[in-house]
Amino acid sequence: MPAITINDVGPRDGLQNQQKILSPGERVRLVQALLNAGMDHVEVGAFVSPKAVPAMAGAAQVLAGLASAKQAVLTVLVPNVKGYELARQAGARSVCTVLYGTEGMATANVGMSCAQAEQATVDILERACQDSIRVTATVAVAFECPFEGPVPPDRVEKIVARFLERGAHEVAIADTIGAAHPGQVRELTSTLVSRHGAERLSCHFHDTRAMGLANVFAALESGVRKFDASIAGLGGCPFAPGASGNVATEDVVMMVQQMGFDTGIDLAALLHASALARELTGTAPGGRARPWLERNLAKTN
Amino acid sequence: MPAITINDVGPRDGLQNQQKILSPGERVRLVQALLNAGMDHVEVGAFVSPKAVPAMAGAAQVLAGLASAKQAVLTVLVPNVKGYELARQAGARSVCTVLYGTEGMATANVGMSCAQAEQATVDILERACQDSIRVTATVAVAFECPFEGPVPPDRVEKIVARFLERGAHEVAIADTIGAAHPGQVRELTSTLVSRHGAERLSCHFHDTRAMGLANVFAALESGVRKFDASIAGLGGCPFAPGASGNVATEDVVMMVQQMGFDTGIDLAALLHASALARELTGTAPGGRARPWLERNLAKTN
Repeated sequence: MPAITINDVGPRDGLQNQQKILSPGERVRLVQALLNAGMDHVEVGAFVSPKAVPAMAGAAQVLAGLASAKQAVLTVLVPNVKGYELARQAGARSVCTVLYGTEGMATANVGMSCAQAEQATVDILERACQDSIRVTATVAVAFECPFEGPVPPDRVEKIVARFLERGAHEVAIADTIGAAHPGQVRELTSTLVSRHGAERLSCHFHDTRAMGLANVFAALESGVRKFDASIAGLGGCPFAPGASGNVATEDVVMMVQQMGFDTGIDLAALLHASALARELTGTAPGGRARPWLERNLAKTN
Repeated sequence: MPAITINDVGPRDGLQNQQKILSPGERVRLVQALLNAGMDHVEVGAFVSPKAVPAMAGAAQVLAGLASAKQAVLTVLVPNVKGYELARQAGARSVCTVLYGTEGMATANVGMSCAQAEQATVDILERACQDSIRVTATVAVAFECPFEGPVPPDRVEKIVARFLERGAHEVAIADTIGAAHPGQVRELTSTLVSRHGAERLSCHFHDTRAMGLANVFAALESGVRKFDASIAGLGGCPFAPGASGNVATEDVVMMVQQMGFDTGIDLAALLHASALARELTGTAPGGRARPWLERNLAKTN
């Protein structure tokens, strides 16, 4: 069976965008539950200002608590060289950085221009190369921006080409506000895969408009084989109160497994991680296919 | 803009599969709300035994209550020639019949063999041709059957070919229990469209596993341009208690409009129909994109 890699971003993108703040210990428990289900890619935290993002405080403790998980790719988000250095000192072997499809989003999110955010990633890439640390560069608002509207695909295509050339191990295309429709996902990803191959590309979808799985399928059609997703659909979007979070990991795993792809993930165990995410946060929706999954897995276990 | 036709099956497939029984007058109100939103294809009832299916009792009254809607294609389901004759006498101009992908489902649903169900449709087609009444033949469990498991695509392909040749105006491919994944939808529909063109084909998806929109997109990719959907996601499945119903009309309309297709439907008015469906039944979920739709349409109205 061909393989699909799923990177659970719930412990970072998810937890950062919901109200309740979890302790480092609780976040370690959540990541452990994901690892127990067979996930081998998890975004576990961010080295950012704990004042600006209190939900990510104690990222070093989270990494320390996961030190025994040597087989998994545990990624932390770093916004700049300072964050990168803290991550490196805490033992991170994989980091992700954020690039922006629009000036409006770069300003709102990190108070930088697009060029400044790109330079931060370039600086991180240089150091990471020497340190043998893996770098994923994520292109935020790759389809639509809440401030500037639709984002021209050729702008995103150029950013992707630039950072693949500059040695990012992976470039992720992110529909940050969950606005993309599968037609445009199909178009952009097919262009990118035809130019660069699929190996160093991934996609990151939010489920605000319920098109998360349709967008995953659209990217699959183009040959993309790596996806971000968030356990229990954890998350939201600061610019759209009440919006759904990332596409739920359990939904994506269900769909791609049913399509015949190998994920290495045990869906029943993943539902335990989903239940834990709901218990810890009190707000995670739990994935759109949850009623069916619970009925179905209850039958087979 | 290219056009997509959406046929709302909520007043039939939806209402038939949820607990509360609506009066013919309430069903007329629901259909009127759909027509007011610009929908021009609605499945409004079934001429079946009111003992077996009490939710569909009074189908003639429903048709009579909609007599002024002369522009719309109002379809009624007929299981046999007797039902067809009742529908004709009640003024129906469009009927649909059901064919089966498996013997198990044919037996469970109507106590017939597949061949008997096919013969019923052949008999109806003969009469309908003389009466200038439109016939849609729906292939139930075209992907997976709750009794027999996966359905071989070539079996469905043969049924479709047979009934297009025999003069059905349209053949609908139905994922009756919401089990299909978009990969198999893409494959089957691309075969069918390449053989027969898309004009006389439609697709009918349930959202049990949250893959409804992904499946609509998969069929769109193959060129299918007509879809069944159910207002407010009305419905369910008698074989899977608690299952979601058909893919919600508002979700499908949102997605295809965003993709640039013309539907002739006013989404804000469609949300009124959705609210009415929820009010009348007390159980309709209201579409998966409802939080976003309500926020977004409140902004623009």
